[in-house]
Amino acid sequence: MNALKRAAPYIRMFKHKVFVLKAGGNAFTTPEGTRAIMEQVGILHSVGIRVVLVHGGGPQSTELANALGVSTEFVEGRRVTDESSLEIAVMVLNGQINTRLLAACRNLGIPAVGISGVDAGLIKAHKRAPVPMNDDPTKTVDYGFVGDIDEVDASILLKQLDNDLIPIISPLSADESGTLLNINADTVAAAIAVALEAEKLILATSTPGILESVDDPRSVISYLDIAGLTKLRDEGRLTDGMLPKAAAIEQALTGGVPRVHVISYELPDSLLLEVFTNEGLGTLVVNDIQNLSLAEQQG
Amino acid sequence: MNALKRAAPYIRMFKHKVFVLKAGGNAFTTPEGTRAIMEQVGILHSVGIRVVLVHGGGPQSTELANALGVSTEFVEGRRVTDESSLEIAVMVLNGQINTRLLAACRNLGIPAVGISGVDAGLIKAHKRAPVPMNDDPTKTVDYGFVGDIDEVDASILLKQLDNDLIPIISPLSADESGTLLNINADTVAAAIAVALEAEKLILATSTPGILESVDDPRSVISYLDIAGLTKLRDEGRLTDGMLPKAAAIEQALTGGVPRVHVISYELPDSLLLEVFTNEGLGTLVVNDIQNLSLAEQQG
Amino acid sequence: MNALKRAAPYIRMFKHKVFVLKAGGNAFTTPEGTRAIMEQVGILHSVGIRVVLVHGGGPQSTELANALGVSTEFVEGRRVTDESSLEIAVMVLNGQINTRLLAACRNLGIPAVGISGVDAGLIKAHKRAPVPMNDDPTKTVDYGFVGDIDEVDASILLKQLDNDLIPIISPLSADESGTLLNINADTVAAAIAVALEAEKLILATSTPGILESVDDPRSVISYLDIAGLTKLRDEGRLTDGMLPKAAAIEQALTGGVPRVHVISYELPDSLLLEVFTNEGLGTLVVNDIQNLSLAEQQG
Amino acid sequence: MNALKRAAPYIRMFKHKVFVLKAGGNAFTTPEGTRAIMEQVGILHSVGIRVVLVHGGGPQSTELANALGVSTEFVEGRRVTDESSLEIAVMVLNGQINTRLLAACRNLGIPAVGISGVDAGLIKAHKRAPVPMNDDPTKTVDYGFVGDIDEVDASILLKQLDNDLIPIISPLSADESGTLLNINADTVAAAIAVALEAEKLILATSTPGILESVDDPRSVISYLDIAGLTKLRDEGRLTDGMLPKAAAIEQALTGGVPRVHVISYELPDSLLLEVFTNEGLGTLVVNDIQNLSLAEQQG
Amino acid sequence: MNALKRAAPYIRMFKHKVFVLKAGGNAFTTPEGTRAIMEQVGILHSVGIRVVLVHGGGPQSTELANALGVSTEFVEGRRVTDESSLEIAVMVLNGQINTRLLAACRNLGIPAVGISGVDAGLIKAHKRAPVPMNDDPTKTVDYGFVGDIDEVDASILLKQLDNDLIPIISPLSADESGTLLNINADTVAAAIAVALEAEKLILATSTPGILESVDDPRSVISYLDIAGLTKLRDEGRLTDGMLPKAAAIEQALTGGVPRVHVISYELPDSLLLEVFTNEGLGTLVVNDIQNLSLAEQQG
Amino acid sequence: MNALKRAAPYIRMFKHKVFVLKAGGNAFTTPEGTRAIMEQVGILHSVGIRVVLVHGGGPQSTELANALGVSTEFVEGRRVTDESSLEIAVMVLNGQINTRLLAACRNLGIPAVGISGVDAGLIKAHKRAPVPMNDDPTKTVDYGFVGDIDEVDASILLKQLDNDLIPIISPLSADESGTLLNINADTVAAAIAVALEAEKLILATSTPGILESVDDPRSVISYLDIAGLTKLRDEGRLTDGMLPKAAAIEQALTGGVPRVHVISYELPDSLLLEVFTNEGLGTLVVNDIQNLSLAEQQG
Repeated sequence: MNALKRAAPYIRMFKHKVFVLKAGGNAFTTPEGTRAIMEQVGILHSVGIRVVLVHGGGPQSTELANALGVSTEFVEGRRVTDESSLEIAVMVLNGQINTRLLAACRNLGIPAVGISGVDAGLIKAHKRAPVPMNDDPTKTVDYGFVGDIDEVDASILLKQLDNDLIPIISPLSADESGTLLNINADTVAAAIAVALEAEKLILATSTPGILESVDDPRSVISYLDIAGLTKLRDEGRLTDGMLPKAAAIEQALTGGVPRVHVISYELPDSLLLEVFTNEGLGTLVVNDIQNLSLAEQQG
Repeated sequence: MNALKRAAPYIRMFKHKVFVLKAGGNAFTTPEGTRAIMEQVGILHSVGIRVVLVHGGGPQSTELANALGVSTEFVEGRRVTDESSLEIAVMVLNGQINTRLLAACRNLGIPAVGISGVDAGLIKAHKRAPVPMNDDPTKTVDYGFVGDIDEVDASILLKQLDNDLIPIISPLSADESGTLLNINADTVAAAIAVALEAEKLILATSTPGILESVDDPRSVISYLDIAGLTKLRDEGRLTDGMLPKAAAIEQALTGGVPRVHVISYELPDSLLLEVFTNEGLGTLVVNDIQNLSLAEQQG
Repeated sequence: MNALKRAAPYIRMFKHKVFVLKAGGNAFTTPEGTRAIMEQVGILHSVGIRVVLVHGGGPQSTELANALGVSTEFVEGRRVTDESSLEIAVMVLNGQINTRLLAACRNLGIPAVGISGVDAGLIKAHKRAPVPMNDDPTKTVDYGFVGDIDEVDASILLKQLDNDLIPIISPLSADESGTLLNINADTVAAAIAVALEAEKLILATSTPGILESVDDPRSVISYLDIAGLTKLRDEGRLTDGMLPKAAAIEQALTGGVPRVHVISYELPDSLLLEVFTNEGLGTLVVNDIQNLSLAEQQG
Repeated sequence: MNALKRAAPYIRMFKHKVFVLKAGGNAFTTPEGTRAIMEQVGILHSVGIRVVLVHGGGPQSTELANALGVSTEFVEGRRVTDESSLEIAVMVLNGQINTRLLAACRNLGIPAVGISGVDAGLIKAHKRAPVPMNDDPTKTVDYGFVGDIDEVDASILLKQLDNDLIPIISPLSADESGTLLNINADTVAAAIAVALEAEKLILATSTPGILESVDDPRSVISYLDIAGLTKLRDEGRLTDGMLPKAAAIEQALTGGVPRVHVISYELPDSLLLEVFTNEGLGTLVVNDIQNLSLAEQQG
Repeated sequence: MNALKRAAPYIRMFKHKVFVLKAGGNAFTTPEGTRAIMEQVGILHSVGIRVVLVHGGGPQSTELANALGVSTEFVEGRRVTDESSLEIAVMVLNGQINTRLLAACRNLGIPAVGISGVDAGLIKAHKRAPVPMNDDPTKTVDYGFVGDIDEVDASILLKQLDNDLIPIISPLSADESGTLLNINADTVAAAIAVALEAEKLILATSTPGILESVDDPRSVISYLDIAGLTKLRDEGRLTDGMLPKAAAIEQALTGGVPRVHVISYELPDSLLLEVFTNEGLGTLVVNDIQNLSLAEQQG
Repeated sequence: MNALKRAAPYIRMFKHKVFVLKAGGNAFTTPEGTRAIMEQVGILHSVGIRVVLVHGGGPQSTELANALGVSTEFVEGRRVTDESSLEIAVMVLNGQINTRLLAACRNLGIPAVGISGVDAGLIKAHKRAPVPMNDDPTKTVDYGFVGDIDEVDASILLKQLDNDLIPIISPLSADESGTLLNINADTVAAAIAVALEAEKLILATSTPGILESVDDPRSVISYLDIAGLTKLRDEGRLTDGMLPKAAAIEQALTGGVPRVHVISYELPDSLLLEVFTNEGLGTLVVNDIQNLSLAEQQG
């Protein structure tokens, strides 16, 4: 019962607060992994935290594309989302993954609802304009059906949260004409955390946090602020996958989310340990580390 | 303006009433067809009718199965939903079709949300038990991941309707353990119409209504009751596709839905003409035709 | 059904918006004319527009005065509302006309309630102070029981609108001591439109709109702004009846009502055509015509 | 302050209870008399009683008819309400009297709203069918635009009461086709008291109560029940004006209103004395006097 | 984190359910003991259980009586509550103990409010009538200011629970005249559990449960039903202190509370272990043990 | 009934307004005195005023201290609240007096609830720091468990008022660690009046008001403002008991309470006379007497 007692002050502190959790498609490649995450999500929900989950679906999209013989076009090293790729993303994100997560919730007795940026006016986006090529700036590249967020209408999520439901969000969106658009899931999670005035944005990744040295998983940085994050980027010490995350983290913090956590989804119970103990898993990023008192560092 | 004046009494009569519309996957094979239906749905919604749309996805599932080289197993002439088929159904129903309909709604400025029987507790079902083989009753056939409905929890739909949203429902469901199950979309529509105490269940089909003679599209029966429907079935005058519809119609009527309409989705404006005029498109089925006064026949 | 389809975007755009319609007593001199207007009001209401109707009662008051042998006193060409005239106005406005309109609503199945500025605190007014005589500025004329509006308390109307009722408003009011006062119905309609933050104020008149040339009914001005209206007045091109209307129009526009329409109540379906088509009946007056884009001109 | 202390238990007992007061047109022939009644109504309202006032308008209608030279037709001693009489009743009841009472309320700072049976669906009535003549039963008399109540929809009054407003009700009504109908004000008051589940129906009359002997104003009967009332009628001891009152009283009591009071509107403060003291003014009529304990007789 | 995971299904099951906990004055004789209990109460509250605490104050009353030199009168072995004793009970229960518990809640950050049966109409009781003496049945004994409950008005508690507050209840009450009355705290707890339709009534005592053999604390009976409890009593195997508890338990069970637990307040974490594990501390009493399935025994 | 009529405008004016009444322990030394005050409180409540009562308990605490042989320590003429004194205050204020007042309310049929500053977060306070001694400023005196208010959370009182309950407040409070603290009841009343945005703070004392000359009870000052109050204090014309009252009065006025009344609780009906007449009992203190018009002086 000691765990419960130690958790009690955190439970009281976080009651009714919004936590936005983002986990990529690789977190959901096995039923066991999926279940382990959803079980933790369910516990956060059961003690009164208003949890929102944003998922990705990269590996699963690649797998379906291979099965269908659809090849991904790359221009200057970046993926182009053509019509076939978009169609695959729609089926994987809104269909396969989202439904699997809902099925896991039903198994666990957790009340959840699936939703994507296309529903009602949840996410309004526009197609990203073609960008000049690095090699030949007189030419442009159109990266296809990729969107930039114009506006998030959080009211539909708030109603779901008020009804004690967990929104499980697929990051697809559309523009005003109904053209479907793919958006980076970290970006979507950050925008939603801002719109919901979330207490925490938690990015669950395959690494144990943001690393001092990319090759050494033991070099997790415990506390970081925007200045520190910028420095890491400028020094080229962020991996490819971490670059969009860094942008999303900065977007969330400047948008008013006080704390962003980067944790591993592989470490057992990482989510619960992060929320209900002061053991300091992974990386906590805040606006300005000077303003983070010792007492607060335990939150 | 005369159309508006003629529509006005119907608008007043149907305000805040629930209409459940079901349209199969073949209604949504072209963007134009999809748009034509969604535009009508949007008009019903704009005049205050609480519309719910249930969609199927048969042709699209077949297409994806073919692309993936998945063959459908048949036993005694009936399709078996194995794991691969189920996975395809999930991607097509919850992913492709549902998202396309939401995209069409965004294009038309109609506030809609996608949902499937897997969300929260919308549909609770169980896997259909293996049935004895006709050829050898000592053996049984397991038709796979096919579900029978135990319970519909309409509260989540009612909240969406109260928020002025159109629920767009994929007929997939799951059992308590989270095993996904495919359910006939007509059956889902009927169960939802009963749970929502709908004023009308409207089945949009590729035929102009229930036919006196299956081969003669001009032989549409205008009014029918359960007794008449039973007689048609007993006389073998219902086509294969109409048989599950007949069961769904009977289920809706005995569950308290006063009127079920079978109309063509191909006839332009069929939905609007059915609702806002007394011209009597398609077939109207009621519990007992004796109780249907002339005045009411115009409703 | 095309009318309905063409109307749909307008229906969606105007849903839950407030329209204040004003029609003078001459619009209600025959049962047919009354019914034609109320039917259109009912259609606006049925598609979700929050309609408020303000009526006058001039011809009917004159008729009753004649029947009772009460003569109207005029000083310097303007009517004096003495006690007898006021009593007649009370009986005609709050009694005869308001009740007739309610009876027409009951016939049409439209839920409406009568109200006047005397009810609760709807309109607080004060008796207009005597004004110096033109002929002899050392003397003053007291025009009697005529009021100027101090304050409109829209809360009672909002409750009626929230209860899905159409308020039918007689323009009589009272001061704090309970002395009844007559107020110009155009003025009342404008003040109420401002208080309700109405989307449109529609003045239904016996002319087809504001005329370029008073004698030529074909010279309707389609678009006008406050500057243009002022110019017309300064050039003496507004008729006697149009002068108080022009003041009311200006009051509404400067008070925040974005659009004021002047239409004919005699033209069949003029109200519906104005609201649900972009055919441009009558005159649309806005604050500044420069800010009215082409797209908006169709609204 | 003793009056306040003595009143306190009654105030507590009657808080939020509905009292329906009916006063005929003769109670409102002078501004002083009108003010005296409305002041008492305002005090009941100020201490939290939900007061509803139903008024008549007999003398005022006669006066206007005379001024207009309209003569009232009588058949077999009973008044026939022809079109002219109805028009006069409309102007007097809904116009003149109702507005005067509202004006008195404004003067006293009492929040009141006027309403008649024609508003929304407050009173649904039908025209009384022609009745056989006493003199020649083979012929019938049509008493004209006189209505019998089919249904009272109290919801609109309840909303007004919930908004802390005093409904001031004119007894006019209409049938479904919108034909206006005159209804006896006592009958309307009783029907409304039943629909509102009123605690008390109070009939204010020109006599000090129901009299043992019609000619002796000192012979007021303090307590009466339905049996006693029937006996009085059977013995011919009720005056002409008291006969419809007796019918209304019985209708209220059998409809569930526990107490009906008949008091004088001429006696100063009669309403307050009746409600806030146990002095027993006028006549209290209950279902069965045996069930009225001594303690209750003071209520 | 395993404790949290094991607790999660119980948390979900008991969310928003009402638990009534009763602990006697001896549970609150030290600050540490008080804090240990309140901490557990706070944890139940933090995970969404609606906890109500009823306290006694026996030892503290005895202590104050001694300090004031007030001696307790006993007749036939039972305590008589005279005026002095009552005054002492008032100061101890409503003053000392209740306030101490609130102070402990403030220290722990738990939102609680004190209340007694005297507040508003929480408990309506009457003074127990004098009972015949055992020794001489022709005489009676008046046990003084001791009350029997007539009615519990739970609405005030429900409002506190709805406001997320923990009601801390002193068992004092009063009759309609305002005479204060002492009532056994177990009896009050049972009556409140019935009125709140509680899921559980938990009696925290100094023994580890109901004992098979009163002198052997290891002989705790795990499951019991009303029949078994009656048998124990009839066999004289209940101690003095357990007799009123047995009556309260029976009252709760027959009043609809499905489960009553008797646990020790001395065993560390007994409340949490009882609620969040299936380890079966203390005694669980139900209506009929036959209806308690194995699965349910874990609840 | 004239008292009722004269009271009516005050009743209307004060409906739903908050009045905070403070009466010291000496007002409640006899059942008759207690009843006389509570009866008046009940009348204010019955006419819709939101009354809050703050009580003291000085004489009763002294009496209990004497009975227990606890002597009060004084340093430099001021009382020190040691642990024993605090314990006595808890039992007297939260136990004895508060419960007696609730019992009187039950007798009078008035819905009231007891509460103290310790409940939920009603009053947050801190222990007053030791103050330098006058005799030897190098030493300090610790006056013990005496609190200064940090914050009042009025939400719990507002919920009680919204539920039509009268909060009866004991002035005890606690700091964040749960240490109980005694606070002057006048100070508590003023702080609560400010937090509730009260219309009036009424201090009921043993004197008939603030006196021009302390020894002459006929020298009551009718109107006073902060400047006048300061002058009286500076001139040494306030008695010991009046000094903390003067501070509380100033605190209330500067905090936004428009009127503070000092009246006698001994004068029969003083509270009613003060509220419902313009007879000017006791002393009315306002911010600035210049701004108090003659008309307002009657309020």
